[in-house]
Amino acid sequence: MPKKNAFYAQSGGVTAVINASASGVIETARLHQDKIGKVYAGRNGIIGALREELIDTSKESTSAIAGLKSTPAGAFGSCRYKLKSLEENRAEYERLIEVFKAHNIGYFFYNGGGDSADTCLKVSQLSEKMGYPIQAIHIPKTVDNDLPFTDCCPGFGSVAKYVAVSTREASLDVASMCETSTKVFILEVMGRHAGWIAAAGGLAAATEGDAPHIILFPEIPFSEDQFLKKVEATVKNKGYCVIVASEGTQYQDGTLVAASAHTDAFGHKQLGGVAPTLAALVKEKLGYKYHWALADYLQRSARHIASATDVEQAYAVGKAAVEYALAGKNAVMVTIERSKGKDYSWSLGEAPLDKVANVEKMMPRDFITSDGFGITDKARDYLQPLIQGESYPDYKNGVPIYTTLQLVPVEKKLKTTFEI
Amino acid sequence: MPKKNAFYAQSGGVTAVINASASGVIETARLHQDKIGKVYAGRNGIIGALREELIDTSKESTSAIAGLKSTPAGAFGSCRYKLKSLEENRAEYERLIEVFKAHNIGYFFYNGGGDSADTCLKVSQLSEKMGYPIQAIHIPKTVDNDLPFTDCCPGFGSVAKYVAVSTREASLDVASMCETSTKVFILEVMGRHAGWIAAAGGLAAATEGDAPHIILFPEIPFSEDQFLKKVEATVKNKGYCVIVASEGTQYQDGTLVAASAHTDAFGHKQLGGVAPTLAALVKEKLGYKYHWALADYLQRSARHIASATDVEQAYAVGKAAVEYALAGKNAVMVTIERSKGKDYSWSLGEAPLDKVANVEKMMPRDFITSDGFGITDKARDYLQPLIQGESYPDYKNGVPIYTTLQLVPVEKKLKTTFEI
Repeated sequence: MPKKNAFYAQSGGVTAVINASASGVIETARLHQDKIGKVYAGRNGIIGALREELIDTSKESTSAIAGLKSTPAGAFGSCRYKLKSLEENRAEYERLIEVFKAHNIGYFFYNGGGDSADTCLKVSQLSEKMGYPIQAIHIPKTVDNDLPFTDCCPGFGSVAKYVAVSTREASLDVASMCETSTKVFILEVMGRHAGWIAAAGGLAAATEGDAPHIILFPEIPFSEDQFLKKVEATVKNKGYCVIVASEGTQYQDGTLVAASAHTDAFGHKQLGGVAPTLAALVKEKLGYKYHWALADYLQRSARHIASATDVEQAYAVGKAAVEYALAGKNAVMVTIERSKGKDYSWSLGEAPLDKVANVEKMMPRDFITSDGFGITDKARDYLQPLIQGESYPDYKNGVPIYTTLQLVPVEKKLKTTFEI
Repeated sequence: MPKKNAFYAQSGGVTAVINASASGVIETARLHQDKIGKVYAGRNGIIGALREELIDTSKESTSAIAGLKSTPAGAFGSCRYKLKSLEENRAEYERLIEVFKAHNIGYFFYNGGGDSADTCLKVSQLSEKMGYPIQAIHIPKTVDNDLPFTDCCPGFGSVAKYVAVSTREASLDVASMCETSTKVFILEVMGRHAGWIAAAGGLAAATEGDAPHIILFPEIPFSEDQFLKKVEATVKNKGYCVIVASEGTQYQDGTLVAASAHTDAFGHKQLGGVAPTLAALVKEKLGYKYHWALADYLQRSARHIASATDVEQAYAVGKAAVEYALAGKNAVMVTIERSKGKDYSWSLGEAPLDKVANVEKMMPRDFITSDGFGITDKARDYLQPLIQGESYPDYKNGVPIYTTLQLVPVEKKLKTTFEI
């Protein structure tokens, strides 16, 4: 069998550890040069394939590829782009085959979340539906932790650690200030549909009653009344109140709290605005001085405080993707499986892509306390191992050394272009 | 001379390293028990003195006091409270003397910024004006880095490091996403009056042209037109644009950009809102997709990424305060002096409090590039040493071990209370 090249791309929102998965793919492929030719990375995800914008990773040094393990964000560029169905846009699939054929690509490794799993599934079907032989393996990645089948998603553990650490630190700050100044602090975190990231804020508490005192999950309908009662009771009892709020916090009818009240000067609804909305509510109804923070990209790019467990898993799923491909697998996602037993340990498994694509895993109700404002011991047992260990990057001049690749383009072979 | 006790308190906004100063004071005083009795800490700053709410630090273990070196925020509680002048509120001063006398306090160590230096100065004058013998030493602390005479302020180096690291990380994120999604990212940072913290964002750039592409300083009047032109040019040139904006960014007439446009649903002007205001402006005028983050308390409590240089200096100024008191000094602030020469080194000095109080040190104009949007090499040479070195706390269960003190109250000796 003639040796085929591999295509690797990063998709969707990037994370602190997606490059560790890239490192896992490329280093493992380099160990199997008898079977896999070159690894071509898509510039900006699947778009790189459609535009024939490929990056020749063989031009990158061993140390650069190793350096990806401690470099956040997407070294090859990512994209938000979902392939339409074959019926809706056959031209896209024909273009992919044209590009893959031109560059002798037989392996497709796609590194992303739920939407990307869908793209990966569609590519895996090129074999059957369009007669082009390709093996497509999905490498899980999402800070949202909402992929099914896998115990957790690479990228999540590091965001979780960032949120837990930041919540603990900010809580000490508010506790110091509350006598004469700030009494309520709100940290807004990511997670539009699932409350995993917000839940991680709960790990800041070492013992019962520690901050954060309130966590707001998208899964629990927001009640202004109950929220305000809890804030007031906490301030009266503790002197201050710390809140971790998911950006997806919503009312019973599905209206986002962020969208409900906050309109900027230009009349735009301002998303990413749960925190200021809640802060204004607290001030209006209870009169407390507040501060709020919105971590946004800082939380998902914070490689400086990444979870060592997460880094290790991100590398492992990349490595396994190559091994699965070499074992002849197709249309699967690599999964992380938690072993039974008291001490945390994990191994890798797989799930069929047609079951993974477009399914979101929500927080189970029994991970959330009965009042809806906290996490249970069950949630803590699940979350805690995922933030274990520190994986510090090296520093120069006081800031981390993050790898910059050369990104040498593969010479184009096609005369045609493709408009996205 | 009979042995006197010492009073130590924390004032104003807390930092990642103010407790390191506390540790320096307490550990050094413990080495001089022949001359200094106990160190009583004020619960919530000077308020603790007025209310006779003192904490007996001698009840804290050696390891707890050592643990303060790696614990952010104010372990004894801080306050925002400025003593009025003797003429305006003589009762406050009489109360202080009453409390100090009752607890045999002869040394006053106050750990804070410009307002606190003023408080410390007023206390130092109790000797002369009211015949109560006390030595008052000010221990500098402010993330704003705006105290005069001292080369830098403990607390600033760690915020600077946090902002530099976060800016670099988020920049990699935006660079990954910009082809199909976010093109403009704005990080809002502290610094109401001086642009030191915003300037630190510039350290994220390793070479000319790296992100951040725009820094907004309170010192440079904001021009919507020039700002938008620069954003547009940067996006066209680089594909994305990263902005670090001081919360104090203001128009020529002194109106805060944050206040100019952003009003929440309850009709309140929302402070801490430069980032969303700029984001809305960019969207409205240029149509770019944006993300923004507001670090707020996260930046000043981020002990997990504290500057080792800053931690060392914070401890040193606490230690020196005790040594200065033992040397008979009064009404001075401990200063950090930068040695001449190419390699960074520093020593300690002192400045008279009456010259320090209520003076703010702005960024020199030659620290800011001529277009007003960046930092010069001169600024870089000044800033870089201050973020050098990592001083990691220990971790347990994936989060830092931060010290909790016992905070044993000193028995009250006065029958009177004092209303703040």
